[in-house]
Amino acid sequence: MKTSFESDYNNGAHPHVLQHLIDTNTMQSQSYGFDAWSEQARNKIRTACQCPDADIFFLVGGTQTNATVIDGMLQTYEGVIAVQTAHINVHESGAVEACGHKVITLPSHGGKMDAGELEAWLKAFHADPTLEHMVIPGMVYITFPTELGSVYTAKEIEEILSVCRRYELKLFIDGARLGYGLASSECDFNLSWLAHHCDAFYIGGTKVGALCGEAVVFPRGNAPRHFMNIVKRHGALLAKSRLAGVQFDSLFTDNLYQNIAQHAISMAMKVRKLFTDAGIPLRNSSTNQQFVELTNKQMEQLMQGVLFETWEPLDANHTLCRFVTSWATTEEDLQTLKKAIDTL
Amino acid sequence: MKTSFESDYNNGAHPHVLQHLIDTNTMQSQSYGFDAWSEQARNKIRTACQCPDADIFFLVGGTQTNATVIDGMLQTYEGVIAVQTAHINVHESGAVEACGHKVITLPSHGGKMDAGELEAWLKAFHADPTLEHMVIPGMVYITFPTELGSVYTAKEIEEILSVCRRYELKLFIDGARLGYGLASSECDFNLSWLAHHCDAFYIGGTKVGALCGEAVVFPRGNAPRHFMNIVKRHGALLAKSRLAGVQFDSLFTDNLYQNIAQHAISMAMKVRKLFTDAGIPLRNSSTNQQFVELTNKQMEQLMQGVLFETWEPLDANHTLCRFVTSWATTEEDLQTLKKAIDTL
Amino acid sequence: MKTSFESDYNNGAHPHVLQHLIDTNTMQSQSYGFDAWSEQARNKIRTACQCPDADIFFLVGGTQTNATVIDGMLQTYEGVIAVQTAHINVHESGAVEACGHKVITLPSHGGKMDAGELEAWLKAFHADPTLEHMVIPGMVYITFPTELGSVYTAKEIEEILSVCRRYELKLFIDGARLGYGLASSECDFNLSWLAHHCDAFYIGGTKVGALCGEAVVFPRGNAPRHFMNIVKRHGALLAKSRLAGVQFDSLFTDNLYQNIAQHAISMAMKVRKLFTDAGIPLRNSSTNQQFVELTNKQMEQLMQGVLFETWEPLDANHTLCRFVTSWATTEEDLQTLKKAIDTL
Amino acid sequence: MKTSFESDYNNGAHPHVLQHLIDTNTMQSQSYGFDAWSEQARNKIRTACQCPDADIFFLVGGTQTNATVIDGMLQTYEGVIAVQTAHINVHESGAVEACGHKVITLPSHGGKMDAGELEAWLKAFHADPTLEHMVIPGMVYITFPTELGSVYTAKEIEEILSVCRRYELKLFIDGARLGYGLASSECDFNLSWLAHHCDAFYIGGTKVGALCGEAVVFPRGNAPRHFMNIVKRHGALLAKSRLAGVQFDSLFTDNLYQNIAQHAISMAMKVRKLFTDAGIPLRNSSTNQQFVELTNKQMEQLMQGVLFETWEPLDANHTLCRFVTSWATTEEDLQTLKKAIDTL
Repeated sequence: MKTSFESDYNNGAHPHVLQHLIDTNTMQSQSYGFDAWSEQARNKIRTACQCPDADIFFLVGGTQTNATVIDGMLQTYEGVIAVQTAHINVHESGAVEACGHKVITLPSHGGKMDAGELEAWLKAFHADPTLEHMVIPGMVYITFPTELGSVYTAKEIEEILSVCRRYELKLFIDGARLGYGLASSECDFNLSWLAHHCDAFYIGGTKVGALCGEAVVFPRGNAPRHFMNIVKRHGALLAKSRLAGVQFDSLFTDNLYQNIAQHAISMAMKVRKLFTDAGIPLRNSSTNQQFVELTNKQMEQLMQGVLFETWEPLDANHTLCRFVTSWATTEEDLQTLKKAIDTL
Repeated sequence: MKTSFESDYNNGAHPHVLQHLIDTNTMQSQSYGFDAWSEQARNKIRTACQCPDADIFFLVGGTQTNATVIDGMLQTYEGVIAVQTAHINVHESGAVEACGHKVITLPSHGGKMDAGELEAWLKAFHADPTLEHMVIPGMVYITFPTELGSVYTAKEIEEILSVCRRYELKLFIDGARLGYGLASSECDFNLSWLAHHCDAFYIGGTKVGALCGEAVVFPRGNAPRHFMNIVKRHGALLAKSRLAGVQFDSLFTDNLYQNIAQHAISMAMKVRKLFTDAGIPLRNSSTNQQFVELTNKQMEQLMQGVLFETWEPLDANHTLCRFVTSWATTEEDLQTLKKAIDTL
Repeated sequence: MKTSFESDYNNGAHPHVLQHLIDTNTMQSQSYGFDAWSEQARNKIRTACQCPDADIFFLVGGTQTNATVIDGMLQTYEGVIAVQTAHINVHESGAVEACGHKVITLPSHGGKMDAGELEAWLKAFHADPTLEHMVIPGMVYITFPTELGSVYTAKEIEEILSVCRRYELKLFIDGARLGYGLASSECDFNLSWLAHHCDAFYIGGTKVGALCGEAVVFPRGNAPRHFMNIVKRHGALLAKSRLAGVQFDSLFTDNLYQNIAQHAISMAMKVRKLFTDAGIPLRNSSTNQQFVELTNKQMEQLMQGVLFETWEPLDANHTLCRFVTSWATTEEDLQTLKKAIDTL
Repeated sequence: MKTSFESDYNNGAHPHVLQHLIDTNTMQSQSYGFDAWSEQARNKIRTACQCPDADIFFLVGGTQTNATVIDGMLQTYEGVIAVQTAHINVHESGAVEACGHKVITLPSHGGKMDAGELEAWLKAFHADPTLEHMVIPGMVYITFPTELGSVYTAKEIEEILSVCRRYELKLFIDGARLGYGLASSECDFNLSWLAHHCDAFYIGGTKVGALCGEAVVFPRGNAPRHFMNIVKRHGALLAKSRLAGVQFDSLFTDNLYQNIAQHAISMAMKVRKLFTDAGIPLRNSSTNQQFVELTNKQMEQLMQGVLFETWEPLDANHTLCRFVTSWATTEEDLQTLKKAIDTL
C-alpha cells in the first residue's frame, strides 16, 4: 500500500494506547462510564486542565460529540453561530439541524471567526424589531485548530469569549484536533488556559492517537442537567465505556497526548519544507494539516507516489491538496514523499 | 474484584478479536467504512447470511443502531410497533422519539410479541375512521433474543412477518445479543434463515465478544437510499471504521461469533443448574441471561460473593435477579458462584 | 342536511363572536399578537382567572397548542406523562413525538389519571438504577374535561398537583373543552381555582363558540423564555392575530364563554334524558359529550334520522356512540333526535 | 389610528370573504377538510390552475405551510436550497430546522435565485468526494413574488425548474403573496402556467384578503402519501376547516383573488408615483410592497403622518422603509400619504 498523507485517522492506535487496551483486556469493569479507567482518565484530564470541578464525558466521534453537546446546551429555539467553513456547517450531514437547531453562519477567515464581525452581527440582531420571527443565537462554535489548520491566538479567543459574555452566548470549542493546535508554534496558550476560556470543549482522541473517543469537558462542573440521558438519547453512550476510558487514561499519562501532537507537527513542518524547497506554494498552517497548491499535472504525478486528499479546485489548472501527519508518520514516509516531489 | 455476572459488556474483547486489532494496528487504511477489513467482514457476513446482495453497515452501539435504522426506514409520520418491555421503549432514553417517531406498544409475553395481537391491533387501526389523526404504523420491531432471554420460534417469526407483509410494515430485528439467541437450544433456525425473514436486522458485537460494534444487515440490498448520510447525520459514522471492521472480520472468521455464543450458553446452563440444584427457582431462559427469583435475604448474602444485577422487585421479600455469562465466563467463575450459593 | 350531534366543531361561530368579527373588520391593527383586541382579551382572561400576572398567548388549534406548550416547557430529554386515552397519545398523529418527546402512559380511569398510580410510577422510576437510560418525566398532562366527558374533582387535581410538586413535574391541563368541564354539575371549582392549580392550561375556543383559537395561560407569568419564538417555530403564530383576539375578546365579554358552555350542557342533559327515557344505557358524563351504548341495529336506524359519531365497538352487537352538543344545538334538534329515538 | 402602510395583514377580511363567512355561519358541516366549502374551493382552484388532478390542502399560515410542505416532501436527510433572504431562512424562527432540515443558502439577487448559480452549486456538490458527510439537497424553495417585491420571469422559473429536473430536486414555490406577483405588470405568466412549472406551491390567503389560510397545491396529484397525517402532525389541521374553505371559496369566485391583487398593485403604483414625484428614490418593485430609501430625518417626519415599516439601515443617515398596500388601501389613504410626503 502506498504511503498515505490522507488523514490522521487512517492508522490504528498509538502503540502505548494499544498496549493499555491489551493490558486491561481481561479485567472486568463497570460499564456506561462507570469503569475505573474512565474515572481515572477524568481525573487526569481535570488535573491537566487545572479544572478540579470539571464534568467530563467520553463520547465516540466528532460529529456525535458536536450534535450532543450543542443540543444539550441549547434551548430548542436557539441556534449556533459558526463560520461558513465550520465542520458542523459543512461536513456533518446536518447532524445539528437534525436536533432542530439552525447553524447561523458568519464569514470564515482562514477558518477563523472574527470577534468584531460576531459582535456586529449580534448588535444588528438585537436591534431587529422582528426578533420573535428569528432564531435566537444561543452559542458560538469555533474549532481549534480550524478545519484549515489555522490557530486562534489567546487574544482572539478572549475577544470572542468577551462578546459571548456580553450577549449571554455559550462558547463551545470543537477540539477534534486539539492536540495539534496546542502543539503549534503559533499557539500562545495551553490546555488549562483554553479550559478556562470557554463553556465547553472537547479533546479529540480519534485524530490524536486513539482508535476512537472524544473527551467532552464542562470546565466548571457546568454540564447540562441529566447530561448522561442526553448522551444516551443521542445514541452516544458506550456500553463498554472502558474502550474510551482506557485510551484516554493512556493519552493523559506521561504527556502522551502532547507528545503525539508534537511529533505530528514536527513531521508536518518537514512536509512544508519539502514543498517549499521544491518551490511549490503552501497555505499558512502551523498544525498537522498542510494545504498545498498543486497544478493538476503535479497533483496527478504526485498521486503515483503517495496518497493525499484533494481539498478544493482553485482554478481550471490548480487544486488545493491536503497532506496530514499523525503519530504514525515516519522519516521513511517523508523520504517517500521527497522522492515523489523530486519527480515533478 | 469480585467475580461478576452483571452483564456481557463488563469484560474486554475476546482474545482473538483483540489479537486481530493488534495484528492490523500498524497498517494504514481508508476510513468511514471504506477500509479493507470492513469490506472483508461485510463479505464474510454476506456469506454467513447467504445474502450475496446484502447491504451491511457497521455502527458503534445498540441504541444508536436502533435509532438510525428505525429513523432511516420510516417515513417521518410513521411509528414503530414494539412490545412494552422492548429496549427502544424502556431503556434508550427516548432515542427513537428524539427522531420524531412514536413507539406504539403491544403487550409483552415474556419479552415476545404475539402475531395475533399484532394483527388484531392493525385491523382495528385500519378500521378506525380517524386514521388521519393517528400515527401510521410503519415497522415492527422485535428483539432476538428478547430482553428477558426468551427466543422466538421460526413459526412465530414467520407469523409476525406474514402480518407485516399483509399490512405493508417493515420488520426489523434487534440482534444486540443475536449470537446467544441463535445458539440457544430452543432456536429452530439459523442466521441465514433469520436474514431471509425480515427487512433489516443487526448482529450485535458489543455483547458478543467485541469492544464495540453492531453490524446492520439489509438482506436484499434494501438499505434506504443515502444510508451513509443517514448514519452520519445520526453521528454514527466511525472515522476509524477499521475498529469495527477488524473486529467483525475476526468474529466472522472460523465461527468465532458462534463459538463465543455457545460457550456463554453452556456456562449459562451450568449457572441454571447451580441454582436449580439449590432449589432456587429461575425463569425460563435458554440464552446467556438467567433470571433468578431470590429472597431479599438470599440476594444480599449472594452479593457478598459475586456481582449480579437486580432486575425488578417481585414482592416485599423477593427480587428477580439477573446473572449473565459471556465469552469471559470461566469454570472458576462458576466455582465461585457455587460457593456463594452453598452459603445460602 | 341532517341534524348533527357529531361534534362541537361542525358549526360556525357563536353569533356574538361573529358579530364582533364583523364590527371590527374594517379597523386596522397590529399583527402577531400585538393587536388591541388580543391585548384586551388577555386582560379579560387575566381578570377571569384572577391571575393578574398571567402570560397569555392565542394559538389556532388544539394539537398545535399541545405540541407547542409541551415542547416549550420540557427539556429535550424529558417526556410527558398522560393516560392511555389522552388526546396527545391517541389523536394527534404523533405531534408530541415529532418534537422529540415521549408520551409516557398510565392507565385511564374513564379518561382520568389516578394520583396514586402517578405517584407509584414516579417512585418506581426514581428507584430504578438505570435512570440514565430512560426518559426523564418532566410534565403531567391531563385533559379537563377528559376525552370521555368525565371531570376531575378539585381534590383529584390537588392530589395530582401535589405529586407533581413533590417530583418537580409541571402540570399542564388541556382545556380544549374547558368551558364544558367548568359548567358541569359535577365540577366543584371555577376557572380561577383551576388557574391556580397548574403550571399551564389552555382555554379552548374552537369547540366552545369560536371559529378557531385556543388561549394558552401561564398563570404566574411563567411562560418559557422566548415563548413567542417557540410559537413561531411551531408555525403557530397568526399573522392576523386579530382573528383570535377578537374572538376571545367576545368570548370573555358578558360571560359568553360560560353561557355557551351552560347552554350546551343543558342540551346534553336533555339528550341524556331522551335516551334514558327510552331505556337505552349511557356512560356517566356531565359534560357536552354523551356516550350511548347502542345495539348495532339501533345505531343504523338512528343514523337514518340524525348524525352522530361511532366511538368504539363494544362487542359484536353493540357500539358506543357519541352525541355532542354545542352553542348551536336547539330544542328543534332535540325534537328531531326524539323522533329518531321513538322509531327504535 | 394613523393610516397604515405597514403590511398587508393589518386589516380584516375583504368584505366579500367576510360576507361568505356570515352567510354560511349557521350551516353545519363536516370538519378537518371534509366540509363542502373546502371541497368546492378545491374544485375552483383546480379549475383556475387547469390542474384537474391537483391535491389541495388548506393550512392556516405561511410559516406553518412552509414547514409542513418542506418536511412532507423531503427525506429526513435532505435539505432545501433557498436564497439568503428567503423567508424560511430569515423569518421563521427556524421552523424548517425544527423539522430536522438544513436550509442551504445561495446568494440573493433582489430576492431571486439565479439558475446558473444553482446549477454551479449542484455541480460542485456532486463532484465532492465527501458527499456522504453532507446534507443532500432535495428541494429548491423560491418565493413568488420575493420578500423584496421582485418577480421571476417565466424564463427564469423555467431555468430553475430545468436544473431541478436534471438534479432530481423538487421545486416548491412559496406564494404567500402569490396574487400580487401574478398581478404585477412584470409577470409574463398566469396561475395555470405556474402550477405546471413546479412540484408544489401555495396560494397565500392571509395577505390577499382572507383572515387566515393558505392553499397548498400539488399540481399533479403528487401530494406526499398520508399528507393529512403530516399536516396533523405539524399541528396544522383545522378542526373547523370551513374557516379556510369558505374564505377560499369566496376568493376563487368571480376573480376576487385577482381583483384584490390588482387593486393593491394599482394602489402601490400610486404610492411609487407619490415618492418619485417628490424626488425620493425607490427600489424596483412592481408588486404591492414598495421599498423607499429615506433619510432618517425624512423617515421620522413621515412617521408623524402614516405608519410603515423600517426594513433595514442603509448607512448612518439612510434607512430602507417598506410601504405595503392591500385590498383595504383607499384613495383617502393615498391622500394622507401625499400630505405626509408634502411636509418633507
